[in-house]
Amino acid sequence: MKLNRSHRLIAMTHYLLAHPHTLVSLSYFVDRFQSARSSISEDISILKKEFPNSNIGSIETVAGASGGVIFRPSIAPDQALERVQALCQELTDNDRILPGGYFYLTDILGDSDHLRLIGQIIASRYREAGATAIMTIATKGVPLAQAVSMYLNIPFVMVRRDSKVTEGATVSINYASQGQSRVEKMELTKNSLGEGEKVLIIDDFLNGGGTITGMLSMTKEFNATCVGICVLAEVQNPDREVAFDYQSLMQVVKSQDNTQLVEVLPGGIFDDHD
Amino acid sequence: MKLNRSHRLIAMTHYLLAHPHTLVSLSYFVDRFQSARSSISEDISILKKEFPNSNIGSIETVAGASGGVIFRPSIAPDQALERVQALCQELTDNDRILPGGYFYLTDILGDSDHLRLIGQIIASRYREAGATAIMTIATKGVPLAQAVSMYLNIPFVMVRRDSKVTEGATVSINYASQGQSRVEKMELTKNSLGEGEKVLIIDDFLNGGGTITGMLSMTKEFNATCVGICVLAEVQNPDREVAFDYQSLMQVVKSQDNTQLVEVLPGGIFDDHD
Repeated sequence: MKLNRSHRLIAMTHYLLAHPHTLVSLSYFVDRFQSARSSISEDISILKKEFPNSNIGSIETVAGASGGVIFRPSIAPDQALERVQALCQELTDNDRILPGGYFYLTDILGDSDHLRLIGQIIASRYREAGATAIMTIATKGVPLAQAVSMYLNIPFVMVRRDSKVTEGATVSINYASQGQSRVEKMELTKNSLGEGEKVLIIDDFLNGGGTITGMLSMTKEFNATCVGICVLAEVQNPDREVAFDYQSLMQVVKSQDNTQLVEVLPGGIFDDHD
Repeated sequence: MKLNRSHRLIAMTHYLLAHPHTLVSLSYFVDRFQSARSSISEDISILKKEFPNSNIGSIETVAGASGGVIFRPSIAPDQALERVQALCQELTDNDRILPGGYFYLTDILGDSDHLRLIGQIIASRYREAGATAIMTIATKGVPLAQAVSMYLNIPFVMVRRDSKVTEGATVSINYASQGQSRVEKMELTKNSLGEGEKVLIIDDFLNGGGTITGMLSMTKEFNATCVGICVLAEVQNPDREVAFDYQSLMQVVKSQDNTQLVEVLPGGIFDDHD
């Protein structure tokens, strides 16, 4: 069955969205649609023009016999900022401050619209970082890591604080949390990360930085390197001294006694022009 | 800027894929593309024909002033079965049997391609179930719940076995695990689920059924009702007597002494013709 241009554009858009950062050969489309290579090339030119116009991302053409197209999702900085500003507004609610000064974010982490947005923004920022895997810590980092994984098309691994018998051999490390006052343990299944992987670390919240320092140690334990660190929200804390670079989507500003929310602002990821 | 049909079809496909099970008014597209209502209607007719042709799902038109379109993702049963058969093949590897007879699935849960497939299959099966929320248990249920959430466009909530101080008030219940031989505790943040919600329960693995029985009790505790239960894999166990209906994507068949993997087969979700 020969198919017309409308059909092909719809089906190719769907296919590329589900296969980001993947080289798709023209032959795949030629075979699938039983269309001439020239027609497929014309389709690609249209997609190449319209994906950026529609703020979906870019399509890169790779020439040659083994050539094809690579779709790289991205979101325009102004649109990303506008939507995160709306999210900050929604989060500026004193009821979100829990006993101990913790900030309640869990509902955001269960909402597919928010997760899509967060995934797009982080994947957009790190699209040239060359990450081969995402590392996060259970439970609340998992939805974020997964959202980014969907747009970067790389797997994510889940570090855990508790040991489970259903995991096989694990590597465990100790790390200091709550300003060096406590030592905790985190573990990662041994065969979940290979040697030499380039890891993007994702977490929900940055407070003192202990958990992320722990994940950096874990990365070293696997002879992997860290190519980026990004958190959904950080507590604004001018005294924090962390030995790593990171990006945040939001900054939570609390009163000095840690009991009241002052405001939620877009984070450092939006200052970064590269 | 007036935009042509190719542009609109690409942008509308992208938009609908990101907004499943949502009524999108024609006016939204009319405004966004500054096009005549008649052109948008023609676009919709094309999409309505091509989405099922391309195995993306269906588009329902809602008539009237407040009308529009609703995209419902689905996957053709034969394509779903074919891909799950390939996954079963990939999983039929004796190294996946861990001490204690546990079956290693964690790598699947960190892979965006597998998660997309699983999300599509489960969302397709339960698309008429009227679920308003997905419930799962940390950690390994989370990626599955999130994948389904992306296609059903409903939030997911994460039940936890451990208590965290960063969560606010929780509801906790006790449940019997490992064939009534142990009592464990699970908790859910109080404001994560409303009264009267219709819950789809998702988990990675069904063995004795204790965890799912626990989640059913949790559902009752919130005055919510369960409209479906689905697991990624179940251990084939003719002696299991569970007091609930469920679907599985795969069945793991082990040797009688629980130490060897015999085979992995497609699960009950593929027997179900409704």
